[in-house]
Amino acid sequence: MGFRTLEWDASIGPGGALRLLDQTQLPHRVVYMELTTPQQVAHAIKTMQVRGAPAIGVAAAFGLALGASSLRDHPPKGLLARLQAIRDELAATRPTAVNLAWALDKVMQAARRAEGSADAASIAQAALAEAQRLAEADVAANRALGRHGAALLPDGARVLTHCNAGALATVGYGTALGVIRAAVEQGKRISVWADETRPRLQGAALTAWELMQDNIPVTLISDTAAGHLMRRGQVDCVVVGADRIAANGDVANKIGTYQVAVLAKENGLPFYVAAPTSTIDLSLPDGDRIPIEERGEEEVTAIQGARIAPEGVRAANPAFDVTPHRYVSAIITEKGVVREPYTEGLKLVMGEDHGR
Amino acid sequence: MGFRTLEWDASIGPGGALRLLDQTQLPHRVVYMELTTPQQVAHAIKTMQVRGAPAIGVAAAFGLALGASSLRDHPPKGLLARLQAIRDELAATRPTAVNLAWALDKVMQAARRAEGSADAASIAQAALAEAQRLAEADVAANRALGRHGAALLPDGARVLTHCNAGALATVGYGTALGVIRAAVEQGKRISVWADETRPRLQGAALTAWELMQDNIPVTLISDTAAGHLMRRGQVDCVVVGADRIAANGDVANKIGTYQVAVLAKENGLPFYVAAPTSTIDLSLPDGDRIPIEERGEEEVTAIQGARIAPEGVRAANPAFDVTPHRYVSAIITEKGVVREPYTEGLKLVMGEDHGR
Repeated sequence: MGFRTLEWDASIGPGGALRLLDQTQLPHRVVYMELTTPQQVAHAIKTMQVRGAPAIGVAAAFGLALGASSLRDHPPKGLLARLQAIRDELAATRPTAVNLAWALDKVMQAARRAEGSADAASIAQAALAEAQRLAEADVAANRALGRHGAALLPDGARVLTHCNAGALATVGYGTALGVIRAAVEQGKRISVWADETRPRLQGAALTAWELMQDNIPVTLISDTAAGHLMRRGQVDCVVVGADRIAANGDVANKIGTYQVAVLAKENGLPFYVAAPTSTIDLSLPDGDRIPIEERGEEEVTAIQGARIAPEGVRAANPAFDVTPHRYVSAIITEKGVVREPYTEGLKLVMGEDHGR
Repeated sequence: MGFRTLEWDASIGPGGALRLLDQTQLPHRVVYMELTTPQQVAHAIKTMQVRGAPAIGVAAAFGLALGASSLRDHPPKGLLARLQAIRDELAATRPTAVNLAWALDKVMQAARRAEGSADAASIAQAALAEAQRLAEADVAANRALGRHGAALLPDGARVLTHCNAGALATVGYGTALGVIRAAVEQGKRISVWADETRPRLQGAALTAWELMQDNIPVTLISDTAAGHLMRRGQVDCVVVGADRIAANGDVANKIGTYQVAVLAKENGLPFYVAAPTSTIDLSLPDGDRIPIEERGEEEVTAIQGARIAPEGVRAANPAFDVTPHRYVSAIITEKGVVREPYTEGLKLVMGEDHGR
């Protein structure tokens, strides 16, 4: 891949910076930003310059590390409370993806572990080391889940995907697109139908762009055409990512995912969810408890700043939906492929971690 | 309503003109065009300045009447062959809606009836009279089907519709939106969810605009949100139009209709199709024989001229899909409401006409 979604650059400024590909400029321009404060990172997450559950988790982790670095000269007393406030600010940027809180809590834990035996500078170092560990672990998890998932894609498969669950939604390699990449690396001929994914058009702007970078055949469609292609026998399976998976296997993901899942089931096609275990939230018994972000009406009434609807019209803009587990053929994680009954399978892959 | 989709204006030019609301300019500008040749009408249909199965049928009928008028000084011999060539040109503009061929054939029949006993001017007059009759009959049919359909909408109903099957898709009043208008006229409180309907955005540009003209509450959504709203219990039923209905009740309509129908069934919601009997094509046993128009890739890769996808990406753009009759709760026509078994019910409403 010729791009990096996000990476730590120690050479920038006194304490290093988070280097981030600005995804709101794609597919037209490849622009990198250098972020040196947690507020800049929070802004980048809110405005979706970085998006995708795993990517915003790791971006926020680096944001918190930047916060710890800014507290280097702070007296030990009260330092962790200050860091916790920064953590809460970053956690409040977007409500649906659980990886965000998960990654932030990992960094907080590392800071707390360092607290007893170290000064503020060492705490900052521990926070940064943990963020870097999370970044590396994300790529490793994606490569592992990609291998597990690739076994599910037959040679010649025409795979439909929704939104962008690619390298751009993660630190690298991708979840749904990681499965596709791994299958291609195994020598399978895979082609992709990319739902454009209104309102933010991540399929058109990001998935199409990302797959073209890797020369993986991709055909863009309006979200309205997915069912028609399935009914005509032009789709072999669906692979999507996830923003949060409840204990029973219900999956929150980009708005429109539920529809694709229902259509896949109706047409006898497998519907796969690819996500690292950091996306699984065993504290929620089912998907109806997952908070669904409502975003601004202007995302629906205008596209790239150009109005497409009458002035004054009302619009609703739920950013995610929940796909009940009965539509999910399998959940592909870095620890293996989970199938019904999900309650048991998800507990198993969460292992000793599941008490977090 | 403060607008006319299309009307004959005898005061323009020597022989009158078809006055047409240019729907590609909505919702930003209300612009009327005056068309005086069949070629201009064909161009307006192809470019979707006029769209919607009933509207393109009647527009084409006026186009053929303009053709007959242009042949006023033609010797009787060969006149009908010339007119037939114009008919074929107009019929070839769009393949899916059957009303187009139906309306053109009605005008040809009127011209043929006049042939034996009249000169070219009288044939032109007969063609124009038939086009005008079709225009009036369309509004009358919509009002009648609106009354039949309104009985199916409970007071307080939250109705989801796809594309635009309104006054803008017909000569006036509308089919799906005619049902909603009739319910509102009966004093029922109805609110509408309008799918934006990518790629051409008829829901955002036309349905939202048209309903706002009539002060009927409307909320615009991305096509990706329809299923989510149904699953959350925020939709009571679906009403859409149709471009062609096969003998077994399979319905061709705007791309994305099939998905909405599947989602309605999955969520236990009625899915109604509102269409005049001119949309029914008993010559086709089922929907798989209905020709589906493929339109240009640029409708998917750009919106209002602004590119939303990478240069060079491939796109597929089927303009219609087919909803199998098992998803259709009822077909609302001007002659009454048809339910399963459709094969018998549709024959019945077609009456003696069905041999055409």
